[in-house]
Amino acid sequence: MAQEKEMSRVTEWRIRMADGSSEALAPEAGLACRAWLALKGLIMGLVLKVCNFFRKAWDLGQNEPKKVIHCLKVGMALTVVSLFYYMRPLYEGMGGNAMWAVMTVVVVFENTVGATICKSLNRICGTFVAGSLAIGIHWIVSQSGKEFEPFINGISVFLLASAVTFSRFIPSVKKRFDYGAMIFILTFSLVAVSGYRVDKLLEMANNRVYTIIIGTALCIMITMIIYPIWAGEELYMLITRNMDKLAYSLDGCVGEYFNESGSSSEGDKESAKKLLGYKCVLTSKATEEAMANFARWEPAHGRFNFRHPWKQYLKIGASMRACAYCIDALDGCVNSENEVPELIKKHMSNIALKVSSESSRVIKELAKTMKTMKKSSTIDYLVGEMNNAVLELQEDLKSLPTLFINPQPLQGADCPEKKNTGAVALMDIMPLVTLVSLLIEIATRIEGLVNAVEELAEMGEYKSVADEKNQNQPVSKTNVPDEHKEGV
Amino acid sequence: MAQEKEMSRVTEWRIRMADGSSEALAPEAGLACRAWLALKGLIMGLVLKVCNFFRKAWDLGQNEPKKVIHCLKVGMALTVVSLFYYMRPLYEGMGGNAMWAVMTVVVVFENTVGATICKSLNRICGTFVAGSLAIGIHWIVSQSGKEFEPFINGISVFLLASAVTFSRFIPSVKKRFDYGAMIFILTFSLVAVSGYRVDKLLEMANNRVYTIIIGTALCIMITMIIYPIWAGEELYMLITRNMDKLAYSLDGCVGEYFNESGSSSEGDKESAKKLLGYKCVLTSKATEEAMANFARWEPAHGRFNFRHPWKQYLKIGASMRACAYCIDALDGCVNSENEVPELIKKHMSNIALKVSSESSRVIKELAKTMKTMKKSSTIDYLVGEMNNAVLELQEDLKSLPTLFINPQPLQGADCPEKKNTGAVALMDIMPLVTLVSLLIEIATRIEGLVNAVEELAEMGEYKSVADEKNQNQPVSKTNVPDEHKEGV
Repeated sequence: MAQEKEMSRVTEWRIRMADGSSEALAPEAGLACRAWLALKGLIMGLVLKVCNFFRKAWDLGQNEPKKVIHCLKVGMALTVVSLFYYMRPLYEGMGGNAMWAVMTVVVVFENTVGATICKSLNRICGTFVAGSLAIGIHWIVSQSGKEFEPFINGISVFLLASAVTFSRFIPSVKKRFDYGAMIFILTFSLVAVSGYRVDKLLEMANNRVYTIIIGTALCIMITMIIYPIWAGEELYMLITRNMDKLAYSLDGCVGEYFNESGSSSEGDKESAKKLLGYKCVLTSKATEEAMANFARWEPAHGRFNFRHPWKQYLKIGASMRACAYCIDALDGCVNSENEVPELIKKHMSNIALKVSSESSRVIKELAKTMKTMKKSSTIDYLVGEMNNAVLELQEDLKSLPTLFINPQPLQGADCPEKKNTGAVALMDIMPLVTLVSLLIEIATRIEGLVNAVEELAEMGEYKSVADEKNQNQPVSKTNVPDEHKEGV
Repeated sequence: MAQEKEMSRVTEWRIRMADGSSEALAPEAGLACRAWLALKGLIMGLVLKVCNFFRKAWDLGQNEPKKVIHCLKVGMALTVVSLFYYMRPLYEGMGGNAMWAVMTVVVVFENTVGATICKSLNRICGTFVAGSLAIGIHWIVSQSGKEFEPFINGISVFLLASAVTFSRFIPSVKKRFDYGAMIFILTFSLVAVSGYRVDKLLEMANNRVYTIIIGTALCIMITMIIYPIWAGEELYMLITRNMDKLAYSLDGCVGEYFNESGSSSEGDKESAKKLLGYKCVLTSKATEEAMANFARWEPAHGRFNFRHPWKQYLKIGASMRACAYCIDALDGCVNSENEVPELIKKHMSNIALKVSSESSRVIKELAKTMKTMKKSSTIDYLVGEMNNAVLELQEDLKSLPTLFINPQPLQGADCPEKKNTGAVALMDIMPLVTLVSLLIEIATRIEGLVNAVEELAEMGEYKSVADEKNQNQPVSKTNVPDEHKEGV
């Protein structure tokens, strides 16, 4: 506004044109002023944008210090590998090929150990196989005579590049050897093509594999020794975190419906955010798959063996998503406008809350099983409790209202609505019935989740808590710890 | 079996050991035979595996010829770029840097045009910016004296590599410039490091940028001219295909529940597979995002402008997923064991089927809108019909059974179940009520989908069918085409 006012105060010169229009002659000062203001606006906007960017980056760094450490590790690896160039004796050994070590570090160094190892092995194998093949073909070609060389080379590059590119579309190759296939094409083309010029082909190939091995070894060492980020552990954390979120969401959604949010001490916004935790479960499929893919390349670390059943985590994730779909539907249905009569709602609230809390207890116990990596001694008991609560809920529903079929409305839809005193339309309790039905469905799906986690416990050879106790003292026959004996 | 028999007929020599156990001395022939059989088994297994692999690859190629064509394009691009090496005049111009053209082609050539352009521009910009910066720093360093060079270079590599690696974690950078950032680090390190040795730095950098531009230009040309695969078009096809699947699944699931599958002529397996079409919607999030990301780099093609609102497709995809969650929950709930009394089921079947068919008609109309890229003149009418059907369903539910609250069970759960003649327990009709409730929820979510598609129509400046008709003949006021006037 201030800018406009300023402009209007400036005297304006106008030229009247032949066609009746007029053109303003902006005074020099005005133009300069306008340009200055525009420039100032532009610069301010740019500065603001840059500031915003850095603020975001700063927040990211504060929230996830792991990422900052990874960046420093990359910088370190690159600086170390640069030494090959600066140290003359090493340089003379490697020749110009030291460039390949730098390139390897840049391309191969990934966020997680698994990804780095996967790319490293892919790079080494791809280079080695393609190099050998290319040199072999080069040798055969050199026997047959110089004049055919370009043709044979061209055809072999065309055929192999097409075939290997195609193999990258095959899921089993794509999952594990995608990068290796690309490196294969790259190396084969380079060697085949430069074989025409470079005489010391074998030496060059040798040097190149050598530098690549140095680069990858450096990457793997740095990524594994300095504050390692394991893909397996990330996957494991993601799954257990999502399990907690799922349990909280389930509890929260049902609680909220019955107006017993239970977390009055916390901020409402925080609570609402937590209720939507199940959405994280819905969106983490891609991350889970990537992590599981990299985790299988990792050596034994922490509590995980080399052949830890990472694939099973994907099954667990899928089971969790199946639950989350139902919670999403539940969230939509219970928020509809139909108001359930207070009396019925109150009558059902206890048992519905019991089902949801028993269900989320099962999920929490599963999360605990995963966190401690010990077979739970109470999971069967808790699943039983959950199923009992479901049965109780069904019984309650059975005993609550008997429904009299009024034969008249079955004939046609134009029958006038008859309201008896004390009668409740089915319509009115629909959200409640839906909630109950979805709760039962969720309980069924949780059993699938329980199975998935139990399979993991079998595969991963988790010890049971009872086994550990056995070594110290005899346990009671029921296997139910004391805290559960008195009931909830 | 035959193998075992054969083995048992051979005479066996045994040595009795000191500890009482005996060790068989297998005759030479037996050993050779066994080894031969083992080898045969191994080879057969390997052959079988390889055959399997090729069969899979063949199926993939037959199902998606686009991928085969892409592979041939890659082979062609590589063969063409190899010419730089073989043609002596070109080679002399480029020097050994022609290698960079080969490398560029291998790394940059992607399946879709968008991805190729994205990587190409990233590569060019990353190389150019990093090269300029590195040369600038090199010049400053060279002024300050040789002895500090390694230190300054090392520090600058460390700092820049760390910072740029960090920037790759920032979502907005990661989405668009991830590859460019990597190339920046690569180029900067290479130039900074080799600047210490190579004297003709500027010329080398110049040549490198030059060859990279040649490589990328070749890739972009080949990918755009020969049977182009546009990321935008792939995204568009994916979304419309998923919409059809969603409509079919919704129709099918509800139809199946009421035992009116409607597709008796088709194979049951085929039909069941189609019913699960909504699962494709659930799993296509990652693909949608990747495609939308690449589509924005593509120039105008086919019916899409340069600034086609690709982001809106993600919103449409999200809306579809919201519907699919409900269908998944519905699929679970209606398959529960509770049998709804035939009488009630039959009574509700007509109207429930109507709601589902009206809903799926809306989805199909949206799919048609997207396919024809013309604003639908009937969508408002269809949404109205859907909402009417929902209202009718609710009315039916209201009028059907009046529910008498039995005050007794409200006191305690131990009350014995009382069954009046002709009474139906709420429990028994629960699946039906849930189905109805979820259908209503799905209808609500479909409205969200309608809004998303309408926004797209606005943004993409779709013409309306009415506009086109206006140019030929006056339309009726209601805007409802004849086929809809008589009702369904």
